[in-house]
Amino acid sequence: MRAPELTFVPYPPDARFVREARSGLVWHRVAQRVLFADTDRTGVVYHGNYFRFFEQGRSSLLRDAGFPHAQVEADGYAYPIYELGTDFFRPIAHDAPIFVHTRFRGLAAVRVDFEYVITLAETGLVACRGFTRHCATNRQGRPVAVDPLTVAVFRNFPT
Amino acid sequence: MRAPELTFVPYPPDARFVREARSGLVWHRVAQRVLFADTDRTGVVYHGNYFRFFEQGRSSLLRDAGFPHAQVEADGYAYPIYELGTDFFRPIAHDAPIFVHTRFRGLAAVRVDFEYVITLAETGLVACRGFTRHCATNRQGRPVAVDPLTVAVFRNFPT
Amino acid sequence: MRAPELTFVPYPPDARFVREARSGLVWHRVAQRVLFADTDRTGVVYHGNYFRFFEQGRSSLLRDAGFPHAQVEADGYAYPIYELGTDFFRPIAHDAPIFVHTRFRGLAAVRVDFEYVITLAETGLVACRGFTRHCATNRQGRPVAVDPLTVAVFRNFPT
Amino acid sequence: MRAPELTFVPYPPDARFVREARSGLVWHRVAQRVLFADTDRTGVVYHGNYFRFFEQGRSSLLRDAGFPHAQVEADGYAYPIYELGTDFFRPIAHDAPIFVHTRFRGLAAVRVDFEYVITLAETGLVACRGFTRHCATNRQGRPVAVDPLTVAVFRNFPT
Repeated sequence: MRAPELTFVPYPPDARFVREARSGLVWHRVAQRVLFADTDRTGVVYHGNYFRFFEQGRSSLLRDAGFPHAQVEADGYAYPIYELGTDFFRPIAHDAPIFVHTRFRGLAAVRVDFEYVITLAETGLVACRGFTRHCATNRQGRPVAVDPLTVAVFRNFPT
Repeated sequence: MRAPELTFVPYPPDARFVREARSGLVWHRVAQRVLFADTDRTGVVYHGNYFRFFEQGRSSLLRDAGFPHAQVEADGYAYPIYELGTDFFRPIAHDAPIFVHTRFRGLAAVRVDFEYVITLAETGLVACRGFTRHCATNRQGRPVAVDPLTVAVFRNFPT
Repeated sequence: MRAPELTFVPYPPDARFVREARSGLVWHRVAQRVLFADTDRTGVVYHGNYFRFFEQGRSSLLRDAGFPHAQVEADGYAYPIYELGTDFFRPIAHDAPIFVHTRFRGLAAVRVDFEYVITLAETGLVACRGFTRHCATNRQGRPVAVDPLTVAVFRNFPT
Repeated sequence: MRAPELTFVPYPPDARFVREARSGLVWHRVAQRVLFADTDRTGVVYHGNYFRFFEQGRSSLLRDAGFPHAQVEADGYAYPIYELGTDFFRPIAHDAPIFVHTRFRGLAAVRVDFEYVITLAETGLVACRGFTRHCATNRQGRPVAVDPLTVAVFRNFPT
């Protein structure tokens, strides 16, 4: 599969975000460097280790979006992942500077979706694209409606 | 999404494999225990750590199928993952005994696909199902036809 | 530092254990294979990933020694690691068959120590040696006396 | 063992470093947040995952110190770890902001040592202290004298 051609340009209202030129969509962005710990003997990032980068993106997005993690947890909500998928277009080498882009992809009655794009910082080329789908659950692990605090953060995400 | 109802029964010709009753398909199977290292603070296996279980399944399948890993590598072939996906149906707790089932899912000109099902050994219930798609590449990382040794192993997989 | 010369010979009373010839000490032993996930771009096991092998050894030893993990936890005890150390003598390659040897090293009022030796299965050579020191704590995370069930397992370890 | 009382104060010549008040020693410092991926079911960082933080500290120190990683590697040198050790004083919770402090600890004919201190950013308390010892090797993996570029970086570290 061909890598998507995505061009991220500054988002003047907030330097922690960028805008994808073609679609106009706003993404959160964090910079990261690849460690030996992320790689395997093929010399590039091990496929299972991309999910740490995605979590870092999601976690940073939520913090920057004012998501009250401790409060949501205290209210009894959890958001386990029930589905994920990733397309890998280019390997990522050790010590490579990368950008992790994250955005909300969708909100439904009992779930929230995120998507991710990792680019190579030096060329802007897309290395991979993925998504995670999260189900709202209560303390007993049963699906419930997404809590109001999460909905509010989602609705306020820049567009 | 509902967990698929899969029932694995013995495959008398070879104890390292099992047969799924409804579909009749043969899967390779390995037993494993969940370590603290596999879990996160939610108390269950972290989503990114399932790919280690999948790799263990794939690696065991290939060894048991007589895949000449060193020879294929010496011949200049590699099989990086270009796509993966997973559905999670039930969390897997620390110390849980699990079975990792793996099978070839497809073979095409330049790629090989595997699929995976992890079941909870005590109940037989399906915890997750996933797949990885691998592209044959040469030493320069360019897509090439799947090498003949790999094709042979694939064709000999029990059915 | 030189690798220690250790020679593990069968321990007839129980095939899950071996005896080190020179010292006469009994060690628990599990076999394992190195995955891509364990390695880094240097082609061999990443130093941080040895602790998964050690945990697997410790966890298997405890299971085989009849350690009632769930009961000890239900009784309110935990055994966090407060110190660890490892000497690496030889790199461990991808797909290498290894043996993880584990034994209790010491028991004191509020702590339990384990030690580990990983050997290369094909040559018997020692790849690394390490230890972990665990402190008994109660539900509040405060040091307490090692619980009686743990002491009993420790005292019954083969010698 | 008691946690050491370390107080890190600004190092005016370079904001990427801090000075430990009592000893006067200069340490490199990076900020980090703990992810779910770093934790295990006990709710805090898994002991094996501290080595990723240490690597991040070491890698950042070397970059900021102008270490020519690619050149040293091209010259045929590698610096595998042959010994490590860590003391854990306080658990580190999910999402905790931490500081990873790193410094050169010693230089000898064929080896280089680093040490690490992780503090909880909110209180300044020491969570753990560790070290790694690296042996200079050539392309054949044999011990050799530390290369001149590495020696130069080491000698220029702020004091």
